[in-house]
Amino acid sequence: MNEIERVIQLLSRLPGLGPRSARRAALHMINRRESLMQPLAQALKDAGEAIKICGTCGNLDTADPCGVCSNPARDGTILCVVEQVADLWALERTASFKGRYHVLGGVLSAIDGVGPEDLNISALVERCSGEVKEVILATNLTVEGQTTAHYIIERLEPTGVAVTRLAHGVPVGGELDYLDDGTLSAALQARRALG
Amino acid sequence: MNEIERVIQLLSRLPGLGPRSARRAALHMINRRESLMQPLAQALKDAGEAIKICGTCGNLDTADPCGVCSNPARDGTILCVVEQVADLWALERTASFKGRYHVLGGVLSAIDGVGPEDLNISALVERCSGEVKEVILATNLTVEGQTTAHYIIERLEPTGVAVTRLAHGVPVGGELDYLDDGTLSAALQARRALG
Ligand SMILES: [Zn+2]
Ligand SMILES: [Zn+2]
Repeated sequence: MNEIERVIQLLSRLPGLGPRSARRAALHMINRRESLMQPLAQALKDAGEAIKICGTCGNLDTADPCGVCSNPARDGTILCVVEQVADLWALERTASFKGRYHVLGGVLSAIDGVGPEDLNISALVERCSGEVKEVILATNLTVEGQTTAHYIIERLEPTGVAVTRLAHGVPVGGELDYLDDGTLSAALQARRALG
Repeated sequence: MNEIERVIQLLSRLPGLGPRSARRAALHMINRRESLMQPLAQALKDAGEAIKICGTCGNLDTADPCGVCSNPARDGTILCVVEQVADLWALERTASFKGRYHVLGGVLSAIDGVGPEDLNISALVERCSGEVKEVILATNLTVEGQTTAHYIIERLEPTGVAVTRLAHGVPVGGELDYLDDGTLSAALQARRALG
């Protein structure tokens, strides 16, 4: 396999890029070697070396703890629990949440064999024994997301923290990362207490 | 801008990837650093350094002349003229063409200010003073593609080479790179003489 085919093969493993679009992307880059191909090669190398998983919340950043966890201006008494880092990024883009996060790294799923011990849940319970006063559940409104939310509610009950959910505005079955920022922002403002 | 944002910014400049899919692709890679992110960084670097434009036909390859031009098993008396390298690749995937290629690097376009001197046409005429006996025009069946084909026919007239076109099978207005291999293959087999 030559160098072009290798690039195409790797690109076609990215979500949303099939073999055809991978070929187009490769040609596009070859025609922009100085301005795009070389910079992307360098950026991927740098990112691969620099990016760490935050040991506190599970966010990805170049520092551990991450920028959100280490920012003294963020309210450490409110945690927003999300499935994935992409959801955290989606909420950050709204700039309407001033608390901190907890990234589960997935959802409970009997079919996929994902149990509580596969998710970042015990660390969440531990964090709730400290300064945390409110946990906002922002899992997706899918069956797995709701199951996961209910499980977390049970696990957090002994800690006494208030548990809330994102409000109406998130469409049923919708995924956070696909929502417009305004909807997400509104859902966050109008969050409601559970139980 | 941190390393993640830089990767997302560059990825979003690839055709077919908007900001959202670029973020998804970046996260996908960060979760597969060893198996995808680092290999892609290396492959892009290698390709950027190794890939050359073939001085004979305009193809992209790690050697100049390219693999097609230097392959003695390919018939040097038949040239297939294509707009872009992507079209050459599309024809190569059919494995039904045993001649060689000539890549124009675009089409004539008054609107975009692309004239004959901006395309790889003079080199084509020059090649036709040698062993070439047939030129197959495989420009797209768009207005610009047809205009370019007619211009090439005029320029090649003095050389005496036979000029043919891809046959029925290529839909009007369609672009080669989007066709299935079977259609392309059939169109190539049934090519017809012009004029
Ligand atoms: Zn963090
Ligand atoms: Zn060549």
